Amino acid sequence: MKFGPRGSRHALQLQAVVAILDGNFLSPLTYPNAMDQVLNYVEANRSRYLDELKELIAIPSVSTDPQKKGDVARCADWIAAHLRGIGMQTVQVFATAGHPIVYADWMGAPGKPTVLFYGHYDVQPVDPVNLWTSPPFDATIRGENLYARGTADDKGQVFVHFKSIEAYLKNLGRLPINLKMIIEGEEEIGSEHLEIFVREHKELLKADLVLISDTPMFARGVPSVCYGLRGISYMQLDVTGPNRDLHSGSFGGSVHNPIQALAEMIAGMHDKNGRVTIPGFYDDVRPLSKKERRALSKLPWSDKKYARELGVRALYGEKGFTTLERLWARPTLESNGIWGGFTGEGAKTVLPSKASAKISMRLVPDQSAGKIAKLFQKYIKKIAPKSVQADAIYIHGGEPAVTPIDSPGVKAAVAALEKGFGKKPVYQREGGSIPIVVQFKQILGLDTVLLGFGLPDENAHAPDEFISLENFFKGIRTSVHFFDELPLYMKNGHRRRG
Amino acid sequence: MKFGPRGSRHALQLQAVVAILDGNFLSPLTYPNAMDQVLNYVEANRSRYLDELKELIAIPSVSTDPQKKGDVARCADWIAAHLRGIGMQTVQVFATAGHPIVYADWMGAPGKPTVLFYGHYDVQPVDPVNLWTSPPFDATIRGENLYARGTADDKGQVFVHFKSIEAYLKNLGRLPINLKMIIEGEEEIGSEHLEIFVREHKELLKADLVLISDTPMFARGVPSVCYGLRGISYMQLDVTGPNRDLHSGSFGGSVHNPIQALAEMIAGMHDKNGRVTIPGFYDDVRPLSKKERRALSKLPWSDKKYARELGVRALYGEKGFTTLERLWARPTLESNGIWGGFTGEGAKTVLPSKASAKISMRLVPDQSAGKIAKLFQKYIKKIAPKSVQADAIYIHGGEPAVTPIDSPGVKAAVAALEKGFGKKPVYQREGGSIPIVVQFKQILGLDTVLLGFGLPDENAHAPDEFISLENFFKGIRTSVHFFDELPLYMKNGHRRRG
Repeated sequence: MKFGPRGSRHALQLQAVVAILDGNFLSPLTYPNAMDQVLNYVEANRSRYLDELKELIAIPSVSTDPQKKGDVARCADWIAAHLRGIGMQTVQVFATAGHPIVYADWMGAPGKPTVLFYGHYDVQPVDPVNLWTSPPFDATIRGENLYARGTADDKGQVFVHFKSIEAYLKNLGRLPINLKMIIEGEEEIGSEHLEIFVREHKELLKADLVLISDTPMFARGVPSVCYGLRGISYMQLDVTGPNRDLHSGSFGGSVHNPIQALAEMIAGMHDKNGRVTIPGFYDDVRPLSKKERRALSKLPWSDKKYARELGVRALYGEKGFTTLERLWARPTLESNGIWGGFTGEGAKTVLPSKASAKISMRLVPDQSAGKIAKLFQKYIKKIAPKSVQADAIYIHGGEPAVTPIDSPGVKAAVAALEKGFGKKPVYQREGGSIPIVVQFKQILGLDTVLLGFGLPDENAHAPDEFISLENFFKGIRTSVHFFDELPLYMKNGHRRRG
Repeated sequence: MKFGPRGSRHALQLQAVVAILDGNFLSPLTYPNAMDQVLNYVEANRSRYLDELKELIAIPSVSTDPQKKGDVARCADWIAAHLRGIGMQTVQVFATAGHPIVYADWMGAPGKPTVLFYGHYDVQPVDPVNLWTSPPFDATIRGENLYARGTADDKGQVFVHFKSIEAYLKNLGRLPINLKMIIEGEEEIGSEHLEIFVREHKELLKADLVLISDTPMFARGVPSVCYGLRGISYMQLDVTGPNRDLHSGSFGGSVHNPIQALAEMIAGMHDKNGRVTIPGFYDDVRPLSKKERRALSKLPWSDKKYARELGVRALYGEKGFTTLERLWARPTLESNGIWGGFTGEGAKTVLPSKASAKISMRLVPDQSAGKIAKLFQKYIKKIAPKSVQADAIYIHGGEPAVTPIDSPGVKAAVAALEKGFGKKPVYQREGGSIPIVVQFKQILGLDTVLLGFGLPDENAHAPDEFISLENFFKGIRTSVHFFDELPLYMKNGHRRRG
């Protein structure tokens, strides 16, 4: 790894002298030249930053694939080496029963707030590989974007902060805040071992707030701070009919085809109004306030444009709610996968023994993942016809979360986004889930600031995932400003401004 | 290939002398010793017969798999060489635009009926391979059965007749009838090129009746003659939602999930009474006569035993009909395969762009495969929600067929089965399809005799396919008797007896 031209190291030493003369490390805001220096360094190193990100992307750290376990471990080591290289003080790779967790800190700003940064270096699988325009692990610039698995979710967004930190440490020898970082390798498979790690390292992870960049902005050119996430209950539904695959001619008409039975169950999970039919499913849903519905309705949004962009003639969802309300503030149920019988080329006249589906439910406050999973299992028992056997397995879950809009972290984020992107950000929620946000609140008592630099059409879990180059570089500037702004709003966890 | 011990060749010469002295080839019935000789030869060669069948089974002639094209061709050549070896006069491998067709004949019985034997040497795919107890192409005896792909459907049943023919020709130097044979390689994929072949070789294929062994007996120990087959219309249904795979969190609740839409369509294809809901589906169904319903109700059958044997707690099907009626005389609709989204290990939160299913309908007289396919396509257009695109592709079809119970061929088959198995056979229909039966009727004007030696639980299209060893050897004896009996009922296509 290389870090910047020779000149910047010289500037760094100079800046260190200034700081020492001053007797304290002050916010660079009080030294406009220092801030310029940090931001100029970012500008001067754009091309190297991208080269390094490509190197990180090239490691196929697909956490769900047992065969990629070595790659996932290699990715953790790469991250650790990189964090050492940019100047983090402590860097340690923690082994877990699953994939490793990288911890790093820089604690050289006594009296200043401590940020706990969280990100993940694992990525989603890349199938179907043939639908990628360029190889999924070979980051490629096309137009205004960088395409590859992990560019948006989450390697690219994690890297935004790495480069902001580097710019500070290489130029000023310090950060305006104290920083702890955990970068995990199991986000895409439910963060199973992270929770144990957090519980076991409460003291190590003590901080004032959590910072995460793993969400999309509201739209291209619309910087956004995200204050809410949906939770998830992820299930697998296995339907077994006859005890073996049968000839569909010789047996068709005598037994319940498990594909048909599964289809009947899935079809019955929504009513005519697009509502989920599981009894009790909506019981704990916190209703949308009039104020929030008004705020959401003011966001720049067009159903027509959205439908056109997704290539569908009509949208679909729960009646009585707008699209944004359905995406952010209403629970949903989706089939993520289905399989059974003959799925190859040609024709095979089989009446299969089994059919299965992966089904996940997105949750909103105050639903609970475990409770919803139980309701699902109870419902399956109720609706499964006697002619088949149906088993619902709870694969993983995460709780929904909402962070107060008037918290110091959110305020600092708003100020930083305005400086980084040159325009006022909007407040938004996200339909996806980051279960760890809930755990940080529950275990460490910390609110999370969601500073997302992705885009809604970034194909996070699909072929041709990308990050906007503009967002990547403006994201780095925003990160620089966030670290700079935060002490103005918060001192050791207490509010200063606003 | 080896054919019999030296002694039998000697006997053959002797028998030929007798025949020549007699001035004509008479039915062996008139020479009880000749018949004994043929049957004794079968008994004496049981072990070699099985070894040869294993050799045939070992060729993985999976017609639907483009990568197995070479194996399919090799299998055709093996069949041709074998038919030459057992003494067929003319043997020729016809190339087609698909897989080859093997033709053979023995026309040395002028004035006697001509049988057109049809069989197929191609087999179904073997996936899921891990569910096979022994390797699918390594024929293995366990208990009373021989297990491997193709043992029942149809290599094993074809081989039954090869060995009966061999026993005649090696011992007596002649058959009691004239025999033409076509063994094709595309039965499992719709016999596309066989129909063209039959149309182009009407003169070559001229005969008095068609003989096929590709059906199961009613039950183990219950020899059966089959007088009816269902037809088939095989469709693929593709449902497309958004133009790319989406993150199910970020997008769930806004668009119609194509898995869900597909499930809704499949679920809607049957009503609460298990009837197919496609408008017009039952219009051309020939109602069951009271006489046939009575006959069916007398067959040894237990729903309870059937359900237990298949491992289901309850049977399923069209209300108002018995299981046998539903299987044999009522049309049905089955999902043969379904796929979409993430189907691997673990969890992927995708809202897929596409989901597909293979759906086939079994038809009875007087439904037409093409018409039903059109009704299906029209129905899909009608029920597909606006929020997705649905395309129904007609993959292949075959018409249903029923052969009169009092035809000479069926009568000869009944007599032969009684001698071969030592008990009176039952009359049955079959739920499966042999489209070529309809084409033989339409193109050549021939009725088909269905002399099946399989079993209902033979796993024809599933792992652990088998043929009963008892049925294999009694089948050979039945074939010997069928060739012997036929001239008594039919002379050049005209009835003699009964």
